[in-house]
Amino acid sequence: MRVNRREFGGLLGGALVGNALPALHAQPAGRSFGYCIIGLGRISMDHFMPGVLAGNGVRITGIVSGHRDKAERMAAKYGVPESSIYSYENCDAMRDNKEIDGVYVALPNSMHAEYTIRAAKAGKHVLCEKPMSTSVEDARAMIAACRAAGRKLMIAYRCQLEPTNLRAIELIRSGRLGVVQTIESGYGFNIRAGEWRLNRKLAGGGPLMDVGIYALNASRYLTGEEPKEIAAHSSVIDHDGRFNEVEENVGWTMTFPSGIVASCNTTYGAPMEGFYRVHGSKGVLHAEPAFAYEGIHLRAKFDDGDPIDDLESEHDPQQFRRQAEYFAGCVAKDQEPKMNGEEGLRDMELIARIYSACGIHL
Amino acid sequence: MRVNRREFGGLLGGALVGNALPALHAQPAGRSFGYCIIGLGRISMDHFMPGVLAGNGVRITGIVSGHRDKAERMAAKYGVPESSIYSYENCDAMRDNKEIDGVYVALPNSMHAEYTIRAAKAGKHVLCEKPMSTSVEDARAMIAACRAAGRKLMIAYRCQLEPTNLRAIELIRSGRLGVVQTIESGYGFNIRAGEWRLNRKLAGGGPLMDVGIYALNASRYLTGEEPKEIAAHSSVIDHDGRFNEVEENVGWTMTFPSGIVASCNTTYGAPMEGFYRVHGSKGVLHAEPAFAYEGIHLRAKFDDGDPIDDLESEHDPQQFRRQAEYFAGCVAKDQEPKMNGEEGLRDMELIARIYSACGIHL
Repeated sequence: MRVNRREFGGLLGGALVGNALPALHAQPAGRSFGYCIIGLGRISMDHFMPGVLAGNGVRITGIVSGHRDKAERMAAKYGVPESSIYSYENCDAMRDNKEIDGVYVALPNSMHAEYTIRAAKAGKHVLCEKPMSTSVEDARAMIAACRAAGRKLMIAYRCQLEPTNLRAIELIRSGRLGVVQTIESGYGFNIRAGEWRLNRKLAGGGPLMDVGIYALNASRYLTGEEPKEIAAHSSVIDHDGRFNEVEENVGWTMTFPSGIVASCNTTYGAPMEGFYRVHGSKGVLHAEPAFAYEGIHLRAKFDDGDPIDDLESEHDPQQFRRQAEYFAGCVAKDQEPKMNGEEGLRDMELIARIYSACGIHL
Repeated sequence: MRVNRREFGGLLGGALVGNALPALHAQPAGRSFGYCIIGLGRISMDHFMPGVLAGNGVRITGIVSGHRDKAERMAAKYGVPESSIYSYENCDAMRDNKEIDGVYVALPNSMHAEYTIRAAKAGKHVLCEKPMSTSVEDARAMIAACRAAGRKLMIAYRCQLEPTNLRAIELIRSGRLGVVQTIESGYGFNIRAGEWRLNRKLAGGGPLMDVGIYALNASRYLTGEEPKEIAAHSSVIDHDGRFNEVEENVGWTMTFPSGIVASCNTTYGAPMEGFYRVHGSKGVLHAEPAFAYEGIHLRAKFDDGDPIDDLESEHDPQQFRRQAEYFAGCVAKDQEPKMNGEEGLRDMELIARIYSACGIHL
């Protein structure tokens, strides 16, 4: 079924929609949000699908894949009927599948736009992996398509829902860290040859597009501001065939309207645990790992008061479960996701500016 | 006395000069290198002078200060005769003081050039604190003056002699870290109002000149390369009177000829322990504190092999002693210090470029 506010209100007798109660707990049994998984890569099979399985009020009701065998195995595992397995060619038929409320787009970056738009046209809400797209134009088209269809669009910035990251934001907003001056952030890894991430046509760009986006997005959610000025450099060091199409390293600095200066790095040539550090007048906050699927670790020291040493395992580590539930809840409550299409678009605009400062044009 | 290679060779019978033996151990008793301290600030009184006292083959034989009382107290403490206490006005008279071989210039930045040049003209070798000067022109004039006088010039980049920093360099040079891709480095603190460091005429600039220079210099000694491209931003956030003359924050990125990208930050508005991280294809190296007077801490993780956790206290923490001995040894051996005037000049040229990229002109 397609869930919109009016219908959902009807189901609930109009009483609970849009108020502060967790929407998913308000859903009658059997009315859980059905996700169709588009793309059976590692992030779908190892993370998102188990997250949905663990979640409340969410379930997997469809699969789109180019590998019928794999799709059938996953369908069996998650109780998806064979009739709800689609290929990339025939997936527009999900329009008539009332068990599918939304899709989870987990394809190579350059395919995000096409499948987001096709899903929206099929009347489905869209949870799309980051980076939202490989160009600003595509991002705008995705927003327009979802808006025209009256469907929600969310970008899978799971860190914005993750408790340890939220605690970091709260330490800043509450003034506990004093006046924030500088941020350092980065994320990278040493990539294996042959990954689709090295194919410009599929990936759109290199580490900036793939993992540098975490440092960029974190700089924005930590400050609550939009970067004003940007300067950047990129390089390729390893001429071993991996970096014929995308960059290997990017370093960039940004200033924010308040004057906060952020210096960031990303690489495909070396291990670099995702991290950020925030230097405020009253203390320092350091998250590392900051963006991992689990084990996020926040430490903070203050001029006065006890330090903080906060491991994600003390909270609930199920980031993908939380994300799946949150998006379903936004649909149920007809509430705009905080990580909506515009949020993704802003990163794409900034990524384009960073690349442009490096002399790379998307 | 003025020590030059020929004279010193004579003293030693010509046998030991210029070979690999530690020059200071080769010095006959009583021929120790006499330092005249120019400027009795914290770094002189709390660090350099105790370092000389602990050192071998070095001693304090003169003092230049505007505070006669303080100078007399320190002279008594270090056994300096009253006749070897100078004011800023009459210090050129040290020319005739044969007990003074060299000077240690520890004045506000903008005075480094004048007193380096006056000391050189008085026939003394010069160990000058960082930043070498407040302009490229001054740095060149200092080099020229020392060269014309046939005297050594060293900039007090004590980290380049410090064992933990040297171990970091060795881990990189030996290939243990693989191919280096990116570096992050920074250093800062929350400055008190009223410090001379906030007076542009005395300081020349803000945190970049004062502590950011450590991150800049480290990026160079870690890579062994000179930055090619530079991009930078600066800001003032706290309009509380401290930053009427100098910047509060600077963030900058640099690329090196190999392609290494370094992203750096410095601040006068927040605590920021000096640090660097180096991401290589085979591992990550992290020093923090990296630039402190003691307690330097190096950690490294590798794809293969045991991690490193190396505290400076396991070595010899006396950085100022080592620096005083090293410079005296360079003079004795007529060996160019690795942190010579040209090394300081390169940082000044880069600082000028970073400021210029920020729209600040020295």
